[in-house]
This record gives sequence, structure tokens and C-alpha cells, in this order.
Amino acid sequence: MSAEPSIARGRGRPRSEPARQAILAAATELMLARGLSAVSMDAIADRAGVSKATIYRWWPTKETLALDALYEQLTELSAEPPDTGTLRGDLSALLGGWTDRVRGRPYGRVIGALVTEAATDTTFGDLYRERFVEPRRAQIRQVFARAVARGEIGVATDSEAAIDLLYGALYHRLLHGHAPLTRQFVDYVVDVVAAGLGA
Amino acid sequence: MSAEPSIARGRGRPRSEPARQAILAAATELMLARGLSAVSMDAIADRAGVSKATIYRWWPTKETLALDALYEQLTELSAEPPDTGTLRGDLSALLGGWTDRVRGRPYGRVIGALVTEAATDTTFGDLYRERFVEPRRAQIRQVFARAVARGEIGVATDSEAAIDLLYGALYHRLLHGHAPLTRQFVDYVVDVVAAGLGA
Repeated sequence: MSAEPSIARGRGRPRSEPARQAILAAATELMLARGLSAVSMDAIADRAGVSKATIYRWWPTKETLALDALYEQLTELSAEPPDTGTLRGDLSALLGGWTDRVRGRPYGRVIGALVTEAATDTTFGDLYRERFVEPRRAQIRQVFARAVARGEIGVATDSEAAIDLLYGALYHRLLHGHAPLTRQFVDYVVDVVAAGLGA
Repeated sequence: MSAEPSIARGRGRPRSEPARQAILAAATELMLARGLSAVSMDAIADRAGVSKATIYRWWPTKETLALDALYEQLTELSAEPPDTGTLRGDLSALLGGWTDRVRGRPYGRVIGALVTEAATDTTFGDLYRERFVEPRRAQIRQVFARAVARGEIGVATDSEAAIDLLYGALYHRLLHGHAPLTRQFVDYVVDVVAAGLGA
């Protein structure tokens, strides 16, 4: 889904792209079915039809593999963020697309496990933020910059805090599961935040 | 800190309140120091100076004990939500107080572990939402109801989605750790949401 390099690419191009894809697919399916803690590298190797050594050549830990697998599943970074002509339209398209991808499958518990690991292991935390959090924040920064250029919102807008409001609300429903994460909810969130920012 | 019954009370009043407090304190300290997954019931029993059987008499699993321990640490439900006369003032006092309690100690990873467990185990998920999520949402519902009564916001306000915006933003920084969870951030979040709701 993405042309971005995987975490592993820094250590040399994988010999076999099909094997890499098979590993990522196996990791995704097993994580979603069982949760990260219940999945072993052995099980992923079995399902992908590769040796465990092959996996470890590309990913040092289960958590880094999980990060790459989710990244491929949830990110469409090859595309520019949609330009609909309004802040509300851009945010609705971007966040609605993400919501469509995560809802309906149990991503909440896998992301919850990664959040826990990120808070426990500083090195993994840096990787998590760099790979999983930052790329999506960067897209919204672009959307806000366009809205500033169009005069929809002020130049003094605190984009970072506004991004936390937007993704925070979505993650809250995804992780806590107290209410459904729907397109209607996304549009309400977008509307309140855009109005709150003066758009 | 709270006069609310613990999860365990349903099965009869604990024989020893000091022992219960010692167990909760030991669980809190160990979870914050090591993260939930690295803490065993043995270690908690050792630190609290009780037998493991005593702990299991009150809490069936480590996760339910963690929930009670966090509940005692983070909740002040005996008090009514502060009434400052404005929606912004009430939200700032309520969310600022919560923020003061969670920041500065590594609650993020403990809460992250509970979120993961809640998404994995339906029974625990129900307990987590009932014990940990709902009481704080109920407080904010009261604050919104007051703001509606004062005419600050419309009667059609979607309080549930607005609560997700508020707590979602705070949890996002707490769990993801990409930026600090400060009183200044809380007030910005409150201001954007209040303005977005028309207050």
C-alpha cells in the first residue's frame, strides 16, 4: 500500500519482497486475531512460511514487526492529503479514511499494546512516534497550513494541540471502546474543532 | 481518597482495611516502577506483607487489582465537580485536577496495559469502562448539563462526543508521549472545545 521504506530497509534491501509481504501479512492477521502479547515469532514464521531467522534478519523484535505491519495496513502516505478546498472537508476526508481503515477490525488492542511498549521502552517509544505517530501528524499539519493560507484560521493556531484534539478523540473511541468510531462521529469532531479554531 | 466501594467489596467487606490499602499501595508502586506486565502477584504480596491467597480473596486477577489501585489514586469522586460559574472554568478545574494527578508519574504505560487488556477480554473491558471510564465521564456530563442550564451551550450539544474530544486529547498525550501534558495544554483544549460548542 505504501512506497515508504520499512524499518528494516536501513539494513539493506530485503532479498525477497514476497517474503517480506508474507511476514507482514502473517503478523497482521495473528495480531488482530490474538492480540500482540499472545503472538510469537514462531507462529508468525509458521504462517508466513519462512524461518524465524529470516524474520529476525529484518526485525529485531515482535514490536518493531508489529509497527511495520500496522504501518503498511493503516497508512496511505504516498498520496498528498486530499485538497477539498475547506478545512472541514480536508479533515473529514483524511480522518474519515483512517477511521474506515481501523474500524471493523480489532486494531484497538494491537495499538494499545504498542502504546504500552512505547511507554515502557524508550527506544521503541522513539520508533513508535517516528513511524506511527509523526507521519499522520505531518499530514494534518499540511491541511492546517493550507487553511491558514486560505485565511480560514489564524496564523497563531496551535496546530499541535489541534491535532491532539482530532486524533485524540478518534483514538479515545478506538482504544477505550465505550462508543462506536463512525464517520458521523468524525464529522462532529471535525466540526467542533474547526469551529473552535474560528473556521 | 474515595468512599466508593472497591471491586472486591461485592464479595463481602474486607477483614482488614489496612491490608487492603497496603495491597493497593504496593500494586501502584510496582506497576508504576515496572509496568503492569512485569509485576507479579507474588511481588505485590511480598511488598504489601500479605499472602498471595489474601490478594486473590479480594481480586481475581492482576488487572482487576490494577484497576482498583488506579481508581484510588486518580479519582476524587466524593466531591461534586467544581462549580466555577462557567463551562470553561468548570472544565479547566476538573481536567486540570486530573492532569495534575496523572502527570509526573508513568501512569501512561499502566493505563495503556489496561486498555490493551480491556480490548482483549470483554469481561475486563466492561469492568474497565464501568470503573475507570464512566465515573469521570459522568462528572463532565454534570458540567455540560450546568452549562446548558446557564444557556452557555445549546440543549442539542452532543455531550458524549464532546467528552471524547476533551479526555481524548489528554489521553493522547498521556499514552503517546509525543508532547507534554500541561495545564496550559488543558486550558487550550478546553478553550477550543468550549468555543466549538458555542460557549
